[in-house]
Order: sequence, then structure tokens, then C-alpha cells
Amino acid sequence: MDEETFTGRLAELFAAAPSVHTGIGDDCAVLDTGDEKTFLLAAADQVISSVHFLPGTPPEKVAAKLLKRNISDICAMGGIPLYALVTVAGNPLEEETLLRFHRGLEACARAYEVSIIGGDTAKCFAPGLVSTLTILGKVEKEKLCLRKNAAQGDFLYATGVFGNSFLSEHHLSFAPRVKEGRFLAGKYTSAMMDVSDGLLKDARRLAAASGLSVEIEKELVPLRQGATPKNALSDGEDYELIFAVSPEKSASLEKEWPFPDVPLTRIGRFTAKKEGEEEATGGFDHLAGEKP
Amino acid sequence: MDEETFTGRLAELFAAAPSVHTGIGDDCAVLDTGDEKTFLLAAADQVISSVHFLPGTPPEKVAAKLLKRNISDICAMGGIPLYALVTVAGNPLEEETLLRFHRGLEACARAYEVSIIGGDTAKCFAPGLVSTLTILGKVEKEKLCLRKNAAQGDFLYATGVFGNSFLSEHHLSFAPRVKEGRFLAGKYTSAMMDVSDGLLKDARRLAAASGLSVEIEKELVPLRQGATPKNALSDGEDYELIFAVSPEKSASLEKEWPFPDVPLTRIGRFTAKKEGEEEATGGFDHLAGEKP
Repeated sequence: MDEETFTGRLAELFAAAPSVHTGIGDDCAVLDTGDEKTFLLAAADQVISSVHFLPGTPPEKVAAKLLKRNISDICAMGGIPLYALVTVAGNPLEEETLLRFHRGLEACARAYEVSIIGGDTAKCFAPGLVSTLTILGKVEKEKLCLRKNAAQGDFLYATGVFGNSFLSEHHLSFAPRVKEGRFLAGKYTSAMMDVSDGLLKDARRLAAASGLSVEIEKELVPLRQGATPKNALSDGEDYELIFAVSPEKSASLEKEWPFPDVPLTRIGRFTAKKEGEEEATGGFDHLAGEKP
Repeated sequence: MDEETFTGRLAELFAAAPSVHTGIGDDCAVLDTGDEKTFLLAAADQVISSVHFLPGTPPEKVAAKLLKRNISDICAMGGIPLYALVTVAGNPLEEETLLRFHRGLEACARAYEVSIIGGDTAKCFAPGLVSTLTILGKVEKEKLCLRKNAAQGDFLYATGVFGNSFLSEHHLSFAPRVKEGRFLAGKYTSAMMDVSDGLLKDARRLAAASGLSVEIEKELVPLRQGATPKNALSDGEDYELIFAVSPEKSASLEKEWPFPDVPLTRIGRFTAKKEGEEEATGGFDHLAGEKP
């Protein structure tokens, strides 16, 4: 069973209270806590030694990656990151490593104005490190972006460049697209997600959640240095935003894009659902764990 | 460095935004999200194979333990559990085990009216299982209980019985004290915590957070079947509530206690801080990882 099927089964299994606006299956859960203007956002993710980072990676960078990939999920909803809870399970669990991890976490948290509010640290039986982070954030109701909101005929846009994230260490050094997500949300798009498992796979997820298919113009996909077009489509860990923009808003978006250092590229288009379309392949399936 | 010292250093390291009413160091973080009447509560905890449960423990029971120990943290604040995010890192990561884990989680979540709203599942490099859960809940502002709110002269009360949790499998079968916490909070106490690391150790934490010491009358501590008085003081994993009650409210509490199946026992008293008091010993230190 692949990650997609598994997540689908979990979403069916779990019942949600009426205050859960959106549960399992988007980048974040969306909670209606009674506030008139905003939703609460929540997501959890993990980094595992020898899966998400190589042995010998400085603990500061591991911590920052963990926080940033969760912030990236908040960005995908158009939101603002606020708080984080962090767990560490490690063996060995050396004081110096732990303090470096937490100092790196705090430096990154300050940079993105996130408060670390809790967590747990414990020793593992088996060697290695598993660290998890839950991020909480908020988004104005009119800015909320969901995967299911793409419309037939919308263009598919992307921030940044793709491919070769692991070898180039982009997966450690990336900056989650907070400002970009805030600029886009509500005004230019209401259908957005971040690319963690591979551009093709994630774009198809965005389309599928909207009951659509997507055609990517592969020659338009901007490449990271050292990446082939195939890398760009399937490597994953790009932490860029992909989003649907209606043709009417496209010219205005390209004209008003205020981030000269961040490429903005129209890379495809959402189409009517094609029955029997082959499943997304080649991306990073965390359940299969075939990487790095 | 023990868990106490480590948590203290983390609390110093991390800066918190003004909306963080209470950060690291209590059973939950307390967040002021702008709602007039309630605070948002958040806590994260983990279960690790061969540390928090023995190999061969049914995955349903592991999942339920993970959720219940987090619910217990919400109880300690006087709150109501609402939502949970769950991560699983395992090797092997067998479909049947995963589904059993998640079915057990959902059954327990339904019983306590908690919605599972997100998470992540990934394969580990090393053998074993690390599963984490972040719980979100809420509490009316006037019911909020904090460790720092005990007063000199208050009695120390406890729900339930203590000791021998691991061998008796109480650590798997316990029921977190939701109703009891709700009954107590605001009316009879504003200083409460749950006992996970050992009664003596946790009672001293409650006292220390209030700038006090605590004297436990050891012969009054109710014992679980098979437990010695020493077990009761130091074993941990009891998931009972301990709390401060002023002498004026003590008789009324004992008279009105509406849970005939749950022992309510006055086991000690908060006193002025004794300088040079020996540090808590004998409890379960998750950082040292000396259990089971």
C-alpha cells in the first residue's frame, strides 16, 4: 500500500468533530475554534536519521529543516506560523548534540517568529534519531488555501526551481515561502500546496483533490543547478509552492510579483479529470522509504 | 544532566511570543488565541518501543496509551481534549500493524471525543517504533490549573492508587482523569499535575514550581495491588492527578466528591521552601531511560 492509499484509508477511519473544517489530507488541518476572522492551522511532520538527513549532518541543520518543512505546510494554506512543539527520540542522546539541536531550532524559530512551546525528549532503544514537530498557525478565513479549490482551466504556477535538492543540500538550506504564500493567498489563489514528495506527484495530488487532472509543460519547469528535467519532476524536498491561478489573474500576478529573487513560473494547466490516468510515480514515498 | 535540568535550560533558551500564556515547564502550553473565555492547550509526548512498552504489546494498546497519556496532560490543566496529530516512525512498517495501531487510536479517540486531524507515517532506518502525539484542547480561563499555583499550607490530594503500573499493565489500561479534572478545576484547585514520572518526583515538581516544598505522609499513599510503599512513591506511569486544595475547601471536597470508584486521598501538605532539600530521586527519568 503506498502513502496515498494509506492516507486515504486513515482519512476514512478517523471521525472528525464539527469544528474540524479540514482534517487529514491537506497540508494542514484547519480548525474553527470559534474565532470570527481566523482559522487555527495544525500540521505534524518528522525527520529520521538516514532517511531525511545523512549521518553527520550538523544537529542545528537537522532542527532547522524540521521546523522549516513544517512552516512550509503553513505557507501552503496561506497562513502565518505561530507555535511549535518538538519531540526528540535518540540513541545516543548526547547533551552537546541535544543542545546544538535546540539552539539551531531556536535560531530558526526566531527567524520565522515561531514560539517553541513544548515537547519531549527521550532515549531510544535502537540507534538513530527521530525528531517530530507539530506546527500551529493561523490564517484569515478569506485567505485559506485548500488543495480542493483548483478549477478546470486554471494555470499551475510554481515558486522557485526544482530538482537535485538532496545533493545540493537545498533540503537543509531552503527558506519556506512565508511571504510568497501570504502574498498569493486569497488574492491570486485559493488552491495551493508545497512540494515535498516531487513536483509531478504533488501537482497530481493538488489536481486530484480538486477532481481534476493536470498537464505540466515539462520544458517550462525551472531547474536547480545540477538537476535534469527528470530530477525536477520527481526528486522532491523542493519546499516550493505550487498553486492554481485563473487565466484572468495570470497577467496581473506576473506583473505584480514582488519577489525579484524568487522565480515565478507558469508550468501547467488544470484540465478535466482523465479517467484511468496513471498514478503519480517517481516521487518520494515516505512510506516506501526509498531515499536518500 | 537530568530531565529537570535539561527542561530548565530549554525553557531559558526559547523565547515566547506575548500570546504564549505558559510555555515549556507545565503539563501543557497555554495559548491566548484572542478568545475571550478560553485558552488553547497544547502538549506533545511520545512512546518508544522497549522504553514505554515491551515488544509484543498489541499495537492498539500502544496507540491508546499514547493518546491517553497526552489526554492526561490536558486533564492536569483542568481542560477538555479536542484534537490530536500523530506521527509514526517504524521499522518494520507493516501494513497490518499500522492499521491495527490506527484503529486502536481511533477507538480511543472516539471514547474521549478527540478528533485525529493529522500526522505523518515514515519508515525508520533502525529497528523499532517511535510514535508521537500532539494533543490540543481548551480550558475556560477561570478553570486553568498551573503547577505554580499551590499555596503554603494547602493540602496535597491525589486521585487513584499508586505503584506497580508497569507490571500490572495499568500503564496501558488506565483511564485519564478527564471528568475528575473538570470537577476539580477552578472550584477546588488551581494547581494540578498528572503523575507520570513518579509520585514523589512529580509532587516535588508541583511544589517547586510554586516556590514551596511538600511533605508526603507516606503511609497515607494508597497502593495499587502488588505495590510496596516505595513503588507507590517512585514507579511512575500512574497517570493520576495530584493537586493542591486549601484547608478551607478540604471538607467540602471530600463530601462532594462524585466519583465513588475513584479514590480521593489527602496525602500531604505544601510547606515553606526548605533550602538545600535533596533533589527528587527514584522516579522515572525519561532522559536517563532506565526503564522498563
